[in-house]
Amino acid sequence: MGVVDGPSGVSFGDRGLAYGDGMFETILVRDGTPMLWKYHVARLHDGGRRLGISLPSEKALHDAMAAACSQVQGDAVFKLIVTRGEGGRGYLPPSVAEPAWQCRAVPFDANTACWQGITARLCHLVLSDQPALAGIKHLSRLENVMARREWTDPRIAEGLLLDARGELVEGTCMNVAWCEQGQWFTPGLRHSGVAGTLRAALLDAGFLTISAIDTAGLSHSDAVVVFNSVQGVWPLERLMGSDGQLLAEWNDLALHRTFQHDAHPFLGYPSLIQ
Amino acid sequence: MGVVDGPSGVSFGDRGLAYGDGMFETILVRDGTPMLWKYHVARLHDGGRRLGISLPSEKALHDAMAAACSQVQGDAVFKLIVTRGEGGRGYLPPSVAEPAWQCRAVPFDANTACWQGITARLCHLVLSDQPALAGIKHLSRLENVMARREWTDPRIAEGLLLDARGELVEGTCMNVAWCEQGQWFTPGLRHSGVAGTLRAALLDAGFLTISAIDTAGLSHSDAVVVFNSVQGVWPLERLMGSDGQLLAEWNDLALHRTFQHDAHPFLGYPSLIQ
Repeated sequence: MGVVDGPSGVSFGDRGLAYGDGMFETILVRDGTPMLWKYHVARLHDGGRRLGISLPSEKALHDAMAAACSQVQGDAVFKLIVTRGEGGRGYLPPSVAEPAWQCRAVPFDANTACWQGITARLCHLVLSDQPALAGIKHLSRLENVMARREWTDPRIAEGLLLDARGELVEGTCMNVAWCEQGQWFTPGLRHSGVAGTLRAALLDAGFLTISAIDTAGLSHSDAVVVFNSVQGVWPLERLMGSDGQLLAEWNDLALHRTFQHDAHPFLGYPSLIQ
Repeated sequence: MGVVDGPSGVSFGDRGLAYGDGMFETILVRDGTPMLWKYHVARLHDGGRRLGISLPSEKALHDAMAAACSQVQGDAVFKLIVTRGEGGRGYLPPSVAEPAWQCRAVPFDANTACWQGITARLCHLVLSDQPALAGIKHLSRLENVMARREWTDPRIAEGLLLDARGELVEGTCMNVAWCEQGQWFTPGLRHSGVAGTLRAALLDAGFLTISAIDTAGLSHSDAVVVFNSVQGVWPLERLMGSDGQLLAEWNDLALHRTFQHDAHPFLGYPSLIQ
């Protein structure tokens, strides 16, 4: 299958399994080169610092990535799981924990049809506020699972999530951006959400600006995209409500292309501008 | 060691590890008899229904409990982990999932010193609101870990958690109750928290009433206890703030004893009334 396993899993007593006490990364690897590698390592280190989980060295991670991906033909997604390991008394971590980490690479083909445009929906689930965990790609992701369980219609490619203020946060597995008067914005993720690596790169590049928006504002924006570091950029053609009603439509193809033009090179994907 | 293992862990692709997509139970077993068994099974079934995870039959669970605990001398704690199993596309569960479950029994001695009274502290972490998950003993418990990591002083036995409204929710691993004018109250857990089985039994018995309280109210209450189905009832002698200041003290031993008198028989523990 071209699937390369690291260790075969975790023990019953691993805190990643017991409490979601850990983090993960999914990294696009093209021709053996990990895309946005520095951003993935930086996010992992930020999470490790905030959660108090010590991490393998960047070199050890890179070696593991290279070994796993060397067995895969073509593009791959490298997934890494780091847990706090075993031990402690209940929720209290051990004073000296031995983190457990493992990884796997699987062959990957981006869903290029979605680069042309998708239908998204607004999720019914409201993301909870937790500043202590916001931004971290941690393992306690049951909210994302519950949001993604809301629909099975394959014509709907992604679901958008709001917080209790009614402000847009992210998609179930992608970040989100909208365009107003030629400028692209993305939510700040201080209260909830996962700080994606492509989002970080686009913020650093000055292409994205932090802002806030609700669904009314979103429906009046000039364009909306969802994006992540594996799939690239999916422009929204339409947004459905959680009850199936049409909330908004967008059709400014040129605007969408400007976002892809700036974002896709970070992933080695085409800009799509003709 | 008297430890009995079920299956040795979960695979890399198990959704319990990947996303905290599952539930657990910890059940006190005394002389081979599981305490509050019906309540543990009921909570598991409620969680399974809400998360869409199908469960082993009650008989299969009971057989697993009996097999695991038969190897342990004296009292035991039986821990069960049920995950949604493997598969799906990212957060989307597979249309037909094969849940994975496993268990372990470990010897247990209740911390009887804490039945005499404890010092608790108010946690800095504020529990997030998520009605879709509130009450369920699910595996996405990183908030509890983060709260429990706030202190290491062994003289502090438990931490109390508030929500964003400033209302008391629970301890890091125990439910909470307070007494006003002879009546005992506990939070409703509609927004957050784990609905403990001893709490459920005491509600059913009419000994507890749902109410709401903030820290100011709590400090003026006549007595406060934390409790769960494994450790029994720990009366609060004092509550410290997250910065170490004394917030409140309680010393009505007779009131504490009334709670233990009603709760401890559910666990086969002594009522402690002289």
